Amino acid sequence: MKKTRIYMDHIAGTPVAPEVVEAMLPFLRGQYGNPASIHHDGEEPQEALFQSRAHVARLIGAEPEEIIFTSCGTESNNLAIKGIGFLHMGEKKHIVVSAVEHYSVLYAAKALERFGFQVTEVPVDAYGQVNPEDVKKALREDTALVTIMHANNEVGTIQPLQEIARCTKERGIPFHSDAIASVGRIPVDVKALGVDLFSFAASQFGGPKGVGALYCRKGLGIWPLFHGGGQEDGRRTGTENVPGIVGMGKAAQLTLENLPQRMETCKRLEDLLRKGIEDSVDLIKFNGHPQEHIPGLVNVSMRFVEGEALLLHMDLRGVSVAGASACMSITAKASHVLEAMGALGGEALGTLLFTLGEENTEDEVRRTVETLAQVVTMLRAMSPLYKRA
Amino acid sequence: MKKTRIYMDHIAGTPVAPEVVEAMLPFLRGQYGNPASIHHDGEEPQEALFQSRAHVARLIGAEPEEIIFTSCGTESNNLAIKGIGFLHMGEKKHIVVSAVEHYSVLYAAKALERFGFQVTEVPVDAYGQVNPEDVKKALREDTALVTIMHANNEVGTIQPLQEIARCTKERGIPFHSDAIASVGRIPVDVKALGVDLFSFAASQFGGPKGVGALYCRKGLGIWPLFHGGGQEDGRRTGTENVPGIVGMGKAAQLTLENLPQRMETCKRLEDLLRKGIEDSVDLIKFNGHPQEHIPGLVNVSMRFVEGEALLLHMDLRGVSVAGASACMSITAKASHVLEAMGALGGEALGTLLFTLGEENTEDEVRRTVETLAQVVTMLRAMSPLYKRA
Repeated sequence: MKKTRIYMDHIAGTPVAPEVVEAMLPFLRGQYGNPASIHHDGEEPQEALFQSRAHVARLIGAEPEEIIFTSCGTESNNLAIKGIGFLHMGEKKHIVVSAVEHYSVLYAAKALERFGFQVTEVPVDAYGQVNPEDVKKALREDTALVTIMHANNEVGTIQPLQEIARCTKERGIPFHSDAIASVGRIPVDVKALGVDLFSFAASQFGGPKGVGALYCRKGLGIWPLFHGGGQEDGRRTGTENVPGIVGMGKAAQLTLENLPQRMETCKRLEDLLRKGIEDSVDLIKFNGHPQEHIPGLVNVSMRFVEGEALLLHMDLRGVSVAGASACMSITAKASHVLEAMGALGGEALGTLLFTLGEENTEDEVRRTVETLAQVVTMLRAMSPLYKRA
Repeated sequence: MKKTRIYMDHIAGTPVAPEVVEAMLPFLRGQYGNPASIHHDGEEPQEALFQSRAHVARLIGAEPEEIIFTSCGTESNNLAIKGIGFLHMGEKKHIVVSAVEHYSVLYAAKALERFGFQVTEVPVDAYGQVNPEDVKKALREDTALVTIMHANNEVGTIQPLQEIARCTKERGIPFHSDAIASVGRIPVDVKALGVDLFSFAASQFGGPKGVGALYCRKGLGIWPLFHGGGQEDGRRTGTENVPGIVGMGKAAQLTLENLPQRMETCKRLEDLLRKGIEDSVDLIKFNGHPQEHIPGLVNVSMRFVEGEALLLHMDLRGVSVAGASACMSITAKASHVLEAMGALGGEALGTLLFTLGEENTEDEVRRTVETLAQVVTMLRAMSPLYKRA
C-alpha cells in the first residue's frame, strides 16, 4: 500500500497545475524577449500578456484594462491601500479596516499612520463576520478607503461585501477587498460585489508563486508604488514577469472551467473531514461561519493540546496542515483573527487549519482524521490539565 | 544554410540558461510548498531560498543576509530610493541622482517630491560619465541619499562608484547604485565599490524575468514598500517567488563560473561589430565611454536616418536590436541619456543599441553589419537631407 504524504495546507499555496507549467515553459525557454521591445522578439510575450490579462479579467468579471499584474497578493494589497492613501494624502486621512484582515492589509494601513492617516478597525462577530452597519458607522468625511477582505484566510468566513459596497458607494469612498483566499475557491464577480479594488494571487488557484493581480476599477486613480518605464499603464511599472503572468492566465482559464467541480470536491471532503473530527475527537470547536465560508477550509480548536505540538506531530506522521496562516509561522504570534472573534479561551487550546484542494481524496481525509485522533490522544495523555479536567 | 533570427538586445532581457530552467522546474512541479510553512512541504523551498540567497550574495561580494529578493530591477530601485526617503522623511529632504539614470531611478526620486524631497541631478560628460566632484558639490546637510548607476543601460558607460562612495561615506550619506546593466556583465564587489544599496535583476544574466534583488548593507535601515507577514526580514514581505529566486540563484552561480569567458566573448564580438560598422557605414558616431563601458554594448548614432525606421527595417530582416532602452519603447521619447551627454544633434540622427550576449556568434555579427549597411543605404537614399549633404 502506497502511503505518501498528505497536503492539506492549500491556503499556503496550491500545487501548480501541469497545464500551467506547460504554458509557462515556452516563456522560460525560447520566448525570452521583453514585451516592451518593439521588434519581433517582443511580440509573442506581448501577445501572451494580452491573452493572460483577458483570462484573469474574465475570472473575476472585470475588463482586461482593469487588471494590474503584481508579484504577489501582498503587493496587490499594499498597492491598493498605499496607492489610495498616497494619492489622497493631505486631503483625506482615514482608513477603515476589519479586525480580521491579513497582515498585508492591517500593516499596510497602519504603515500610513506615518503619513498622517488614522485607522479604524471594525470588529467581527463570533463567526468572524463584519456587520455592514459597523462599517457605515465608522465612515468619516475624510475616509480615503475602506478595506474589508472577501474571505478570511484562517477561518474562511465570507464577508458581506455587497452590503458594505452599498455604504461606500453612497459616500463615494473607494472600497478595496483582499480576495486572495476567495478567488479560485468561489465564483467572483467584481461588478456584482461592487468593489473598486480587489487583490488576488495566482498561487491560490493552481498558478505559480511570484505573480498576483489587483483589479482597479476603470476611472479610479492610484499612486503607483513603483515609478519607472511605464508598464501596466504606469500603475505598476517594471519588466513584466512574463512566464508568471502566463501561468496566472492559464490557471485563471482552468479555474473558470473547473470551479464548480473544484468546489464540489472541496465541500464533500470538508464535510467528511468535519464529521470525522467530530466523531473521533472530543472537546473541540470549529471556527468560522458554519455556512458562509469558502469550501474546503476547516479551522478547529481542541482543548488541552498545544497548537505547535499538534502541527509538528501531524507533520511527523505525514500530514501537512497549518497552525494558522503561513505568515503567522514567521511571527509565531497567537491568531489575531481568533482573538477578534473572541475564540481564544484562557485555557490551553490548540488550533489546526486544514485547507483542502481538488487533488485531495476521501482516503486522505480518513487517514488525516485517524492521525489527528492519535496525536490528540497522545498529547492529552501528557497534559496535566487534561487529567484534571 | 540556416538563417535564423539574430538577437542583439540582451539589455532588454537575456535568454534563460537551460540549467536555470531545470533548476526552477522542481519548484513549479512537486515543491509547491510555502517556505514560511513549518511543516515538511515548507522545508525544501526554504532550503532552496537559503542556497539561492548565498549564490546571489556571492555574485556581488555580499553576505546572504544583505540580499533582499524583489520582483524586478525596477522594484529594487524603488525600494532603495523610497525605502530611504520614507525612512528619513521630515528629517532629511534631498536626493542626488545623475542625469542619465534609468527611469525607475529618476522617476522614483522625483516621486518623493510629493513628500517634500528635492532632487538634484548631477550632469555627465560627453561620454556619459559623472564627475565625483560634482556629486560632492551637490551634497547638502539634509541629503538623504545619493543614487548613481553602475553602468548605463543605453551607452554602457561605467561610473566611478568608488570615488563617489568616498564622498558619501565621509558625510555618512547612504549611496545607492542601480547595477541592473552591470551585474552579470562585469565583476562586481559591493564592498570594494563602497555602495550601501545595489539593485540588480536576474533577467540580465541568464535568469528569469520576475525576480530581482536589492543589496542592503548590514545595519542600514529602509522603510519597506510592502508591509505584511514579515518575509525577507520584514524589508520585502510577501510569499516568495520560489521558482524565480531559485532561477536567479542558479543564474548567479553560472555567472560566477562563466563571467570571464562571457566577457571575453562579448568584448571580441563587440570589437568586431564596431569595426564592421565603421568600415561599412559612414557618418556615424559611437556613444558612450570608449574604454570604461560594459563589454558587448554598442550604441551608434547615424546621420540622415531615422531611429525607428532603422529599428523596424533591421527587425524585418531578422535582427532584433533596440532604439534605446526597452522602457523607452513604451514612452517613445528621445533618449534623455544621449541628451544629457549632448549627443542629440539638431540634424536627423538615428541611434541603434546593440547588446551582445555569450550565445552570439561572429557569423551573426557579420550578418548584422551587412544588414545594417543595406538598411542605412536604403534609408539614406530616401532622405532629401542626405542628398543635399
